[in-house]
Amino acid sequence: TIYVITPTYARLVQKAELTRLSQTFLHVPQLHWIVVEDSEQPTALVRDLLASSGLAYTQLHILTPKDRKLQEGDPSWLKPRGAEQRNEGLRWLRETASASRGQHGAASDDAVVYFADDDNTYSLRLFEEMRDTKRVSVWPVGLVGGMRFESPVVEGGKVVRFHTGWRPNRPFPIDMAGFAVSMRLVLANPDARFDGNAQMGYLESSFLQGLVTMEQLEPKAEMCTKILVWHTRTEKPKMKREEALQKQGLGSDPHVEV
Amino acid sequence: TIYVITPTYARLVQKAELTRLSQTFLHVPQLHWIVVEDSEQPTALVRDLLASSGLAYTQLHILTPKDRKLQEGDPSWLKPRGAEQRNEGLRWLRETASASRGQHGAASDDAVVYFADDDNTYSLRLFEEMRDTKRVSVWPVGLVGGMRFESPVVEGGKVVRFHTGWRPNRPFPIDMAGFAVSMRLVLANPDARFDGNAQMGYLESSFLQGLVTMEQLEPKAEMCTKILVWHTRTEKPKMKREEALQKQGLGSDPHVEV
Ligand SMILES: O=c1ccn([C@@H]2O[C@H](COP(=O)(O)OP(=O)(O)O)[C@@H](O)[C@H]2O)c(=O)[nH]1
Ligand SMILES: O=c1ccn([C@@H]2O[C@H](COP(=O)(O)OP(=O)(O)O)[C@@H](O)[C@H]2O)c(=O)[nH]1
Ligand SMILES: [Mn+2]
Ligand SMILES: [Mn+2]
Repeated sequence: TIYVITPTYARLVQKAELTRLSQTFLHVPQLHWIVVEDSEQPTALVRDLLASSGLAYTQLHILTPKDRKLQEGDPSWLKPRGAEQRNEGLRWLRETASASRGQHGAASDDAVVYFADDDNTYSLRLFEEMRDTKRVSVWPVGLVGGMRFESPVVEGGKVVRFHTGWRPNRPFPIDMAGFAVSMRLVLANPDARFDGNAQMGYLESSFLQGLVTMEQLEPKAEMCTKILVWHTRTEKPKMKREEALQKQGLGSDPHVEV
Repeated sequence: TIYVITPTYARLVQKAELTRLSQTFLHVPQLHWIVVEDSEQPTALVRDLLASSGLAYTQLHILTPKDRKLQEGDPSWLKPRGAEQRNEGLRWLRETASASRGQHGAASDDAVVYFADDDNTYSLRLFEEMRDTKRVSVWPVGLVGGMRFESPVVEGGKVVRFHTGWRPNRPFPIDMAGFAVSMRLVLANPDARFDGNAQMGYLESSFLQGLVTMEQLEPKAEMCTKILVWHTRTEKPKMKREEALQKQGLGSDPHVEV
């Protein structure tokens, strides 16, 4: 099984993003989608979308504490996004695994964990590449970090350094979309988690450090030469006319879910 | 068959957009994708993507004349985008239909034509809704025109006016994503086409005028109360670090397709 952990939060494009993402995942055999809402309560929008998605899924939620959350107007790099949500997904995985131990013990033995933001674009081949991850597998990510792509650099079948536009000497200068971890490793390291207070660009490192060394990374996607995932971002829709009409009592029906 | 006509043009996010779009369409039975590139020649990127998509498709191309094309820095509403490409798709449909007449004459009789931009988000239900279009079917579009949604307004089963934030009295104030046309109607009106010189906001009207009246529109999506398509737009990725590294000869490998 591939466990995909997706942080998500309420905004105008949320349903659109989750809709197209669910369509991608629906093509992938043996995928379990763990959707973690950045909210105080589970929302009906996400509940209904998951229920009609046709996917195996788990709906979780945890609110990012206000002091760790980006505020309107903050530059997007100021604070990491989705850290508590990914940790909540990890917590659920470990709890579920330990509850089922003894019953069908080895069930999760060849499972893989992947962190998939709700706005990226994923090729179907990516999931086949990550499926046999032993510890941590890695591959390039397109359109990230101000670059056409960032990528591990492979020599003689091993990752020897990283192609990145910024601080190549970070422990793991890899975007969240650029690696998967075996369930075995997640369970063997019960304290591994994302540090929501990590400096900019160090969130991935805060999790991977201690789990794996650069030498142990398993390069996928034809030795990291193919782009199978893109760090796309969706424009925030303008609501100028909506706001003007609302002032006249003529706004779009608020009962219609968008 | 649903014939989906998609204009597309080369840019950093093109492969990502077409990748996720192809995954959507791959869930839809009896869909034929007509991809029309805004280019002088068919490109290898689109050819390879289509060939490995698993979809039934046709790859066409036609370059937008320079004087009709948006230039870097122009506001996006200045000129209609994709008009010549959609017309090229219509041309191919009519030519193909007339070539096959006599052989399997009625084959296209219950076919439907839909214009799907490469950056929007489409629910799978949308395609079921449009499948039995008699003349022109319509439904709401989310996140368009500065509004939460724009929509035909239905009373007594008929479209009586339009909910839109701007010039409600245009003949058809409907986004490209908000209607489908029966193949029969397209063939019965061999001159119906998009006017690439239409004023802003009148491109859809230039095609629909003459094909149908407001009274004849067939409302779908539960009498136009459900949002099944979203006018999402993807951010243009920043390439600051890439450009800086390229100056040092350290840019991302240009042979890697992104
Ligand atoms: O306040 C927030 C902002 C973002 N996210 C989620 O965290 C992930 C990363 O956020 P985003 O895509 O905005 O980051 P960027 O594209 O800037 O790297 C996405 O799945 C978001 O839905 C979240 O849960 N709460
Ligand atoms: O120079 C261009 C610009 C756009 N398009 C295509 O035309 C459609 C509409 O363009 P866009 O999505 O940029 O329009 P908007 O989102 O602003 O309505 C999309 O399928 C684009 O790929 C095109 O073929 N050539
Ligand atoms: Mn993102
Ligand atoms: Mn668009």
